Amino acid sequence: MGGKNMHILIIGAAGMVGRKLTERLVADGRLGDAELSVLTLVDVIDPPVPDGFAGEVRTVAADVSSPGEAGSLIASRPDVVFHLAAIVSGEAEADFDKGYRINLDGTRFLFDAIRLEGVKAPYKPRVVFSSSIAVFGAPFPEKIGDEFFLTPLTSYGTQKAMGELLLADYSRRGFFDGIGIRLPTICIRPGKPNKAASGFFSNILREPLVGQEAVLPVGEDVRHWHASPRSAVGFLLRAATMDLEPLGWRRNLSMPGLSATVGEQIEALRKVAGDKAVKLIRHEPDPFIIKMVGGWARDFDTGRAESLGFQAEKSFEEIIRAHMEDELGREV
Amino acid sequence: MGGKNMHILIIGAAGMVGRKLTERLVADGRLGDAELSVLTLVDVIDPPVPDGFAGEVRTVAADVSSPGEAGSLIASRPDVVFHLAAIVSGEAEADFDKGYRINLDGTRFLFDAIRLEGVKAPYKPRVVFSSSIAVFGAPFPEKIGDEFFLTPLTSYGTQKAMGELLLADYSRRGFFDGIGIRLPTICIRPGKPNKAASGFFSNILREPLVGQEAVLPVGEDVRHWHASPRSAVGFLLRAATMDLEPLGWRRNLSMPGLSATVGEQIEALRKVAGDKAVKLIRHEPDPFIIKMVGGWARDFDTGRAESLGFQAEKSFEEIIRAHMEDELGREV
Repeated sequence: MGGKNMHILIIGAAGMVGRKLTERLVADGRLGDAELSVLTLVDVIDPPVPDGFAGEVRTVAADVSSPGEAGSLIASRPDVVFHLAAIVSGEAEADFDKGYRINLDGTRFLFDAIRLEGVKAPYKPRVVFSSSIAVFGAPFPEKIGDEFFLTPLTSYGTQKAMGELLLADYSRRGFFDGIGIRLPTICIRPGKPNKAASGFFSNILREPLVGQEAVLPVGEDVRHWHASPRSAVGFLLRAATMDLEPLGWRRNLSMPGLSATVGEQIEALRKVAGDKAVKLIRHEPDPFIIKMVGGWARDFDTGRAESLGFQAEKSFEEIIRAHMEDELGREV
Repeated sequence: MGGKNMHILIIGAAGMVGRKLTERLVADGRLGDAELSVLTLVDVIDPPVPDGFAGEVRTVAADVSSPGEAGSLIASRPDVVFHLAAIVSGEAEADFDKGYRINLDGTRFLFDAIRLEGVKAPYKPRVVFSSSIAVFGAPFPEKIGDEFFLTPLTSYGTQKAMGELLLADYSRRGFFDGIGIRLPTICIRPGKPNKAASGFFSNILREPLVGQEAVLPVGEDVRHWHASPRSAVGFLLRAATMDLEPLGWRRNLSMPGLSATVGEQIEALRKVAGDKAVKLIRHEPDPFIIKMVGGWARDFDTGRAESLGFQAEKSFEEIIRAHMEDELGREV
């Protein structure tokens, strides 16, 4: 095995998931049976060059929503394309034009660049598209099943749902071999506290683990859907390597995750880091965030993804321990 | 009532449904409480000028998928916009670029033209978008419910599903007051037999009713989902006048229809027109059409649309009688 040399293109490589994916690919040096020879990292800002990669690394500052950019990237005919680039929910809501340009047009330009490259000479890469649970909008059942309809309540969710439809159609037409995966909320997000409305789910664990205070703006009974950055990378690698035949033309899947209340998150923190850590969580209810979170998905039935081998954490302790190992260099 | 003068814009006015809608609007001279003062009829070819309309009729040959065209049409600020324009399933499958240009870009240009008109001065028309049951793709349950997910198996169905998402998002953002309605297969389609794979559902009734032979390419046990042209117009008028508040942001609805087998169609023909008519149906199985039809929706649960006052025929005899009254000038 391992004879094949593989070229991987990551669009959105400077984002959190993109960086985690890059780290993992560099550490593995391979994807499935194939050795990595070229890693092309693209983002609107020059992505960081990873250390320790035996093959060739190309970093490119490019915006795939600018006409022509996607075509240049695809001209080198990568074997696998990870499309992780997007502007986030808040920004897509605040700037309508930018949201549609980056999240919809960018995706379509990329998919079309692949289609048109295939007109020059046969070309059918694997395309892995990161979608989001934002494609779902309340009201929904307590557990959202694999056949529940998509009724996004944000422009971001709308753009992701449209990307999913394009991906399925372009796959069906044979232009590429695509799979879209709907990531749960990533927890614990590494880095500094951010202003995202969902940031507190990570903040209330990450900050106390290093002796810092964190603000909890909602009640402890709030239930949400989580997976660790490590699981997210695992999903992407599985999506890039698995046989897609069993999916038929239903190429978009809700990924497994862990449904947990904030109270359960806090109890897991207590088990791992003690009462001292829990005392660093300051309760400061924020009516605006409470209202937003009320419309978010709480739980999923992801039987389809699980039957296809996708796996996430089973407890919040596992999620916290993964963070400590991956980010804090502590064995737990 | 009736003080308000209304301007209605129909895009796709030369198509079968567009012509039926125009006829009905001209006959009524009003929409809901409002008198019609202007009727703008748009299609890629100049639509026919209807007779007997008291107000002003404008016919325009325009393609909303050409940049700028939609803006010109919307500059006159119609109160209601019916967006019925599309290239059909077979053509969108045969010509990939054309399908996305007309069915996706055309819809987006139109919606954006309305959004941008609203930037000049407040403007929020009613937008009625004709979608299709082609947004659903097999496998599906025997009855497709209101919350079943959209997995189109054609580029046409993909483009309609993307249009639905845009419509919901633009409505949520307050750019217009939109509703998308998924029409059943229209039966009996007036006119000549056409080459559409679904044409036989109409042909086997329409032709024998006027003493002509028709070919049945599938078995009598094939079940499908139908509504008359008269019902389709009724759906459009209801969508244009109803209060949309009860829909929330779930602005796309499967319309009611009649689920019937080909055998049931034939028995209805026998009741209305006798054995002589039925004998004009020639059974010529076509493996290609049999395979296609196997992937089509057979039945729906349209409780949501029904609770909102949408109604279709309850028997195929009703559908046949509607055709005879509307097309053949025969009272039954």
